[in-house]
Amino acid sequence: MATDNGSSSGNNILSVVGTGPGDLDYLIPAARKALEQADVIVGYRTYLDLIAEVIDDKKVVSSSMMQEVDRVKQAFDLAETGKHVALVSGGDPGIYAMAGLVYEIAELREIKTEIRVVAGIAALNSCAERLGAPLMHDFAAISLSDLLTPWELIEKRVRAAVDADFVLVIYNPKSKKRDWQLGKVFEMVLNKRPGSTPVGMVRGATRENEEVSVATLDDFDTAGVDMQTTVIIGNSTTFISNGKMITPRGYGAKYQLI
Amino acid sequence: MATDNGSSSGNNILSVVGTGPGDLDYLIPAARKALEQADVIVGYRTYLDLIAEVIDDKKVVSSSMMQEVDRVKQAFDLAETGKHVALVSGGDPGIYAMAGLVYEIAELREIKTEIRVVAGIAALNSCAERLGAPLMHDFAAISLSDLLTPWELIEKRVRAAVDADFVLVIYNPKSKKRDWQLGKVFEMVLNKRPGSTPVGMVRGATRENEEVSVATLDDFDTAGVDMQTTVIIGNSTTFISNGKMITPRGYGAKYQLI
Repeated sequence: MATDNGSSSGNNILSVVGTGPGDLDYLIPAARKALEQADVIVGYRTYLDLIAEVIDDKKVVSSSMMQEVDRVKQAFDLAETGKHVALVSGGDPGIYAMAGLVYEIAELREIKTEIRVVAGIAALNSCAERLGAPLMHDFAAISLSDLLTPWELIEKRVRAAVDADFVLVIYNPKSKKRDWQLGKVFEMVLNKRPGSTPVGMVRGATRENEEVSVATLDDFDTAGVDMQTTVIIGNSTTFISNGKMITPRGYGAKYQLI
Repeated sequence: MATDNGSSSGNNILSVVGTGPGDLDYLIPAARKALEQADVIVGYRTYLDLIAEVIDDKKVVSSSMMQEVDRVKQAFDLAETGKHVALVSGGDPGIYAMAGLVYEIAELREIKTEIRVVAGIAALNSCAERLGAPLMHDFAAISLSDLLTPWELIEKRVRAAVDADFVLVIYNPKSKKRDWQLGKVFEMVLNKRPGSTPVGMVRGATRENEEVSVATLDDFDTAGVDMQTTVIIGNSTTFISNGKMITPRGYGAKYQLI
């Protein structure tokens, strides 16, 4: 990767770009263009590795996980020197990712840098694709991380979503330090839906270590679930066909499908 | 567009491909490749027009809206003659779109054609991008179309999502024949959240006729909302900054953002 040549292009732009799940076939052209136009790329190392061939000749500032606030401040500091900075996140920066923090910090620090968010293929899109068609009907996306959200609120949301028969998309289901929440969610779902309810998980979608499995609430093994995993729990109508998880939209009640 | 040359490639493949919002900069390379590899393209005319330059030399079977079941059957019939057929939907075929119907009909008719779903940028991704960062926290996606779902169930889901302070992503908010549901949803939200709650709408994201507006529940004008529109209603923490709608993830409570 090239070193900084000291030029200031007078851009003052912060592009917030998602890599999608990882495979470059899932990186939208708008995101690739933003990366190509940027003077500097800022991001968490793992995500930068996924797009290495796109940002090969760029100045890169990489950091480790869990330093989101510092990373955004650093990206703004660089942009304010007249650079076009691309801040890279995984998936879609607009879904549980970096876009919000960027706007929040811009507001608090009264930053005038132009902010450009570029959508991406989020975990829910790639996970749904791998599992079949689980998101054909209303769904609730819920993160189980209680780092920034009290567990009571998470539990309240799970209960509400289960009661109203939403499909559940579970972000951050489990980490090394946080291992009981997913089991608790399954327990809550089992109070309202049968053990035969389909559950799917996708780990590292489109990457070399991708793992996909579809099972039922009774049979699902949470051992393989980690922070790289997204879990989808079916609603009362979701069924499994040839290993795929399908939530009908309701055409069958109105139209002749055969 | 080319006429059928009568060749049978022995592929027997049905690719289910989303155009994303419309602009080709939002069409993922995996979807473009599937379209390029296909022998025949099947889809609703409006979506095919959006990708005209990609499918220019292909045999195309277009149809009008509201004939989803017939379109899927036709796509399978063509695939079973040994073709690779790409069935095109808008957005992400895995979110309220064609993937489910494809798997359902395959199961009922015991079809052996290989099915390949390719994810896409869904309305919720492009709408969130245009509005700012409304989906930084848990959200519920709900379609207001009561064509295939009883209104009572839709209302139950809206109520549950409002009670548990989800951000709401409203699909199919309004059509020519169905004009009161969105107002009813606003009424339900106003029972629990203040009139200052941010609401955003995006119509025809990335297209020539794109319209984006951010307002509050009190001020929001539903006149411009139609079937091409997605509406996002903030949770109790969502705020407006420089015309953007932002739902904080919660960093501010734990970290020094300035």
